[in-house]
Amino acid sequence: MILALAGGVGGARMAAGLAQVLPPESLTVVVNTGDDFEHLGLSISPDLDSVMYTLAGRNNAAQGWGLEGETGRCMEALKALGGDTWFFLGDMDLATHLRRTQRLREGATLSQVTRELCAALGVRHTVAPMTDDRVATRVLTPDGELDFQEWFVRRRCEPQFLEVRFDGAAAARPSETLVRALADPELDAVVICPSNPFVSIRPILALPGVEEALRLRRVPVVAVSPIIGNASVKGPLGKILGELGWEVSSGAIARHYGDLVDGIVIDAGDARLAAAIEANCRTRVQAVPSLMKDAATQRRLAEAVVAFARNLARQ
Amino acid sequence: MILALAGGVGGARMAAGLAQVLPPESLTVVVNTGDDFEHLGLSISPDLDSVMYTLAGRNNAAQGWGLEGETGRCMEALKALGGDTWFFLGDMDLATHLRRTQRLREGATLSQVTRELCAALGVRHTVAPMTDDRVATRVLTPDGELDFQEWFVRRRCEPQFLEVRFDGAAAARPSETLVRALADPELDAVVICPSNPFVSIRPILALPGVEEALRLRRVPVVAVSPIIGNASVKGPLGKILGELGWEVSSGAIARHYGDLVDGIVIDAGDARLAAAIEANCRTRVQAVPSLMKDAATQRRLAEAVVAFARNLARQ
Repeated sequence: MILALAGGVGGARMAAGLAQVLPPESLTVVVNTGDDFEHLGLSISPDLDSVMYTLAGRNNAAQGWGLEGETGRCMEALKALGGDTWFFLGDMDLATHLRRTQRLREGATLSQVTRELCAALGVRHTVAPMTDDRVATRVLTPDGELDFQEWFVRRRCEPQFLEVRFDGAAAARPSETLVRALADPELDAVVICPSNPFVSIRPILALPGVEEALRLRRVPVVAVSPIIGNASVKGPLGKILGELGWEVSSGAIARHYGDLVDGIVIDAGDARLAAAIEANCRTRVQAVPSLMKDAATQRRLAEAVVAFARNLARQ
Repeated sequence: MILALAGGVGGARMAAGLAQVLPPESLTVVVNTGDDFEHLGLSISPDLDSVMYTLAGRNNAAQGWGLEGETGRCMEALKALGGDTWFFLGDMDLATHLRRTQRLREGATLSQVTRELCAALGVRHTVAPMTDDRVATRVLTPDGELDFQEWFVRRRCEPQFLEVRFDGAAAARPSETLVRALADPELDAVVICPSNPFVSIRPILALPGVEEALRLRRVPVVAVSPIIGNASVKGPLGKILGELGWEVSSGAIARHYGDLVDGIVIDAGDARLAAAIEANCRTRVQAVPSLMKDAATQRRLAEAVVAFARNLARQ
């Protein structure tokens, strides 16, 4: 069994690749919920939705988030009413938030709701939130501390990223799915998806016991670098790395994860970095074409990642 | 100044007629909120929306509720997710509920939110809820007591209507707009719109002081009958009258309002009832074509109602 830790777009694409390669019982995707927020009275879980929609084959692949064929009639009307439209909620996507909000109010856990939504969407692999408790990613900027979506969407990542903290993480319990996966005797490897390490993966690792469990387990932990060349494939990672004083390269990703990971998958074009990473970080490196443009490239990367992890396990 | 007391479709159509005849400063429409409910986490005010949308010229005239050109993409998606879709919320209509819900959570009163929504929709006449407090219309049926929308929409008015009560009405304060209108020295008449007397008008009259104020004021109170011939123009009024043991006729409406009203407008086709109503109910009767099919018939009825009320005032 493979446990994948996933954030937004990169996580969703990697999860979709792994789901092509592994049967439902052999893949558990645990998703960052630090980006979750209440907006317009709705409980919104952007990363869970990205993963669910992508696994369901319903995502807008070009855009990277939301549903294919989505419309914005509600948002248009809301704009005319003077409402908040900085966070776009498509008409079909709204149904997900309405349903989630209702079920949470009825007392269901986010894990339960996610299971129900996945079942309704035809997602057969296991998808779970990192926790059922409230964790809020907060970005410290020169303008003060901002809620993640305020920084990410409303302010378009413009304010300098000085630091990040995960409000509530220390008191949150990892979800049962995460706890069980980490303790599962069938666990073969943990894949850290090519998500933003600072805002998508660190919230998961910040939950009590998670990083310790990864270190204590004898299964390989493999990260897939979200950097190709000197840029992040998507999102503000390049900007964040620069503002934190790191160079923008897969070498920085390897150093960031340090000895938490046993191996890192980097892009074939960055193969020249492999020797330095292996020497400096004691991390095994696999260089393969890592840009996930479509189902075929997602599948090929997933195959390479799984093969690399299985290979590490045998060593 | 005319104060109109309004419920759903009949109230919205009458209000639209009066708005054609009276300038903005001369018409205040106070709307039933007993039908309001929380659904899918949203604060929904069906009667206020019907009145606002109709005054804005945005209503679906054929259907009688909702917006013209509305779509149901969110509801379709919600159905696929196993969500509650018995109460249809159109994609554009959802924006109204999202905005209202957000503003109420921010601490705005329903009166304020209604003013804001009216301004955004270009409604220039005054529209206000009957109260900013929570009043819930509950229908007693052989299946037990049902929330109004449960009975009206979900159960399609099928369970027998034994009785109705207005939960919270005794402790609710009439809205400032209603209180001011009732005390306004410029008040010329009160028009009870052709709404359902039992579930749309009675909640307004059940608020502390409202019926007393109507009785004490020396301005005429004129009701417009929602019955034409032996049927209600729209909605379950005919069924309710039957189940309560009344005959279905404008005579029953006149008896229902009794000496609260000084005059009643009935349909021209029911003119033969006038003498009996005037004799039995001591209510003056005006028989005019009362079916509001379009803007022109709405206007003609409004003109007749206003003229009748002004005539009563002079007597």
